[in-house]
Amino acid sequence: MTEPLPPGATIGILGGGQLGRMLAVAAAELGLKCHIFCPDPASPAFDVSAARTIAGYDDRDALEAFVRSVDAVTYEFENVDLAAAELIAAAKPLRPGAKALEVSQDRLTEKQFLAGKNIPVGRFLAFDPFEPDDKTLDLLFERLGDPVVMKTRRFGYDGKGQAILKNDGSGAETLSAFAGQDVIFEAFVPFTREVSIMAVRGVGGEAATYDVTENVHTDHILATSTVPADIDPETANEARRIAGDILDGLDYVGVLGIEFFVVGDHDSESLLVNEIAPRVHNSGHWTQDGCAVSQFENHIRAVAGWPLGTTDRHADMVMTNLIGQDAADWQALCADPQARLHLYGKAEIRPGRKMGHVNRITRQT
Amino acid sequence: MTEPLPPGATIGILGGGQLGRMLAVAAAELGLKCHIFCPDPASPAFDVSAARTIAGYDDRDALEAFVRSVDAVTYEFENVDLAAAELIAAAKPLRPGAKALEVSQDRLTEKQFLAGKNIPVGRFLAFDPFEPDDKTLDLLFERLGDPVVMKTRRFGYDGKGQAILKNDGSGAETLSAFAGQDVIFEAFVPFTREVSIMAVRGVGGEAATYDVTENVHTDHILATSTVPADIDPETANEARRIAGDILDGLDYVGVLGIEFFVVGDHDSESLLVNEIAPRVHNSGHWTQDGCAVSQFENHIRAVAGWPLGTTDRHADMVMTNLIGQDAADWQALCADPQARLHLYGKAEIRPGRKMGHVNRITRQT
Repeated sequence: MTEPLPPGATIGILGGGQLGRMLAVAAAELGLKCHIFCPDPASPAFDVSAARTIAGYDDRDALEAFVRSVDAVTYEFENVDLAAAELIAAAKPLRPGAKALEVSQDRLTEKQFLAGKNIPVGRFLAFDPFEPDDKTLDLLFERLGDPVVMKTRRFGYDGKGQAILKNDGSGAETLSAFAGQDVIFEAFVPFTREVSIMAVRGVGGEAATYDVTENVHTDHILATSTVPADIDPETANEARRIAGDILDGLDYVGVLGIEFFVVGDHDSESLLVNEIAPRVHNSGHWTQDGCAVSQFENHIRAVAGWPLGTTDRHADMVMTNLIGQDAADWQALCADPQARLHLYGKAEIRPGRKMGHVNRITRQT
Repeated sequence: MTEPLPPGATIGILGGGQLGRMLAVAAAELGLKCHIFCPDPASPAFDVSAARTIAGYDDRDALEAFVRSVDAVTYEFENVDLAAAELIAAAKPLRPGAKALEVSQDRLTEKQFLAGKNIPVGRFLAFDPFEPDDKTLDLLFERLGDPVVMKTRRFGYDGKGQAILKNDGSGAETLSAFAGQDVIFEAFVPFTREVSIMAVRGVGGEAATYDVTENVHTDHILATSTVPADIDPETANEARRIAGDILDGLDYVGVLGIEFFVVGDHDSESLLVNEIAPRVHNSGHWTQDGCAVSQFENHIRAVAGWPLGTTDRHADMVMTNLIGQDAADWQALCADPQARLHLYGKAEIRPGRKMGHVNRITRQT
């Protein structure tokens, strides 16, 4: 099916968090309906959707009814069960497709995919099966240096499922805490900065990228995204080339987020891909107020088979996440004429919870 | 109640058309929920609202349940029944208040209110009771000139409920077609152009205006709005002053649209208020893509008792309505990098029906 969905068609979205919510709003601006599928009855995306299903992702009856009710399906998170993805894709366009899920939901598969495309990634090592013995740590430090970053292969986010192995005698205990889990070991990258790029590809293979964004994480959670990133133009071009290779390699449809480490200083910068996310991405939220067409609208356009919108940027921007109690400052933030406040409608403030974000224009370009 | 509604609060909206829909989207961006009350099961605003009531505006039980479920109430159309408005206002903040409805839903009351504030309006005449006889036409032409514009006092829009009386012998027949209706007679205004202004006032009385917009109507329906309007700066200042007087005179909370006739040429321009709309207004749709804070967000901010957002404009704009079959061009419009497409999600294209609009930036300012 390569015909565009007509206005009034319904896009199904797996996941009802803030990303699903902002996708649903973008769809509404284009006259498209959304049906949100999420197990959480308090999903913020339900508040802006034409239809809602509250059910588990393993509930085949609910999934089948959902798929019948929609014209295409997308998702706001990469851990969609592959069996569910296949069930959906057999009946309706699933965009991005199952391959993007398969590759991105396992850190090892993802790294192997990237390395196989000659895309630069940090050194990594995995064992199958993983049966650590007395020599494992020595091998890891020998191959990957000191320290080593240990990550679960699946379901990690915002620093969860990660630990640092140091060659100071503490490694064995850290290792044992991950016993029985599939893990990947990565060389610690002494990065100068973290950057990311949002890329989008349409059903016909046409692609575009937003400008590279510089990201600062606090306690493993994204704190700010600043655009433009303080990198050389050639480095930015390299990021765009890598994005194009990944999009084509996955035969991708929709918006893809790619996080990079920048290694070295300006004259000798290089990029390593840290991870990819087959969805709209927190570090692309600045596009809502810095571009005519946001990452959310472009994702919806791609999923609907519509022409992509411009990714041109009309301002320098800083996006600041509102984490937990940050959101309690909403009155001051909405009184600040420089701040564009976005709140996610989550009922309860919890520590570490993403409650909203603020986009600030630092310069019209 | 002058405390601001907290994020997560629910705003009730009477009316589920495109204005309610765009208000609901603006509320969602601020973390506020909407409950839409509308008799039409196919209301486009239902697709982006947390709660929906399908019931007539005269259904007291439904209205009472609706009012209990929300924290404040607003509306997308001025013909809200005054009994319903009073029922609502007795229980929850109704913003704008009942006075704005009372004044604006009757053209005679509105003209009298404006004239009473020394705000310039065209000459008008009404009879109570209206019992036309042989001398009525002569009196009308003598007092108001030739031709005379006859309008129903209530429920007119987009040229409906209007007729032109000419002093050529055809007047009696036209007059008889409106027999039994409450009508107002207005002098025909030989205007140079039509302009409008969107003004907003908060719960504390603070007010702001967007830039004056120039409007072109085709077949009595708004076709395009262009900002800035081609008027003298002093004329624009006069529009702002009039807006401030109307807002204060109505003790208004929310966005108000004011339509003017511009009479005379640049050196001798003057303004006459044509009509006011106690709501967001079609001629303010350009603010979605020309301002950091749109008329929709500012209306929601005011209704929620939040600080108003900036009304600064960052671009020259042209808004073009998509009427009826115009919307069939959606594929070309969404492929045009200069066009920002907004579709209302209406199921069926009908002649004269507002299906969406396109905002085009003509110059960044």
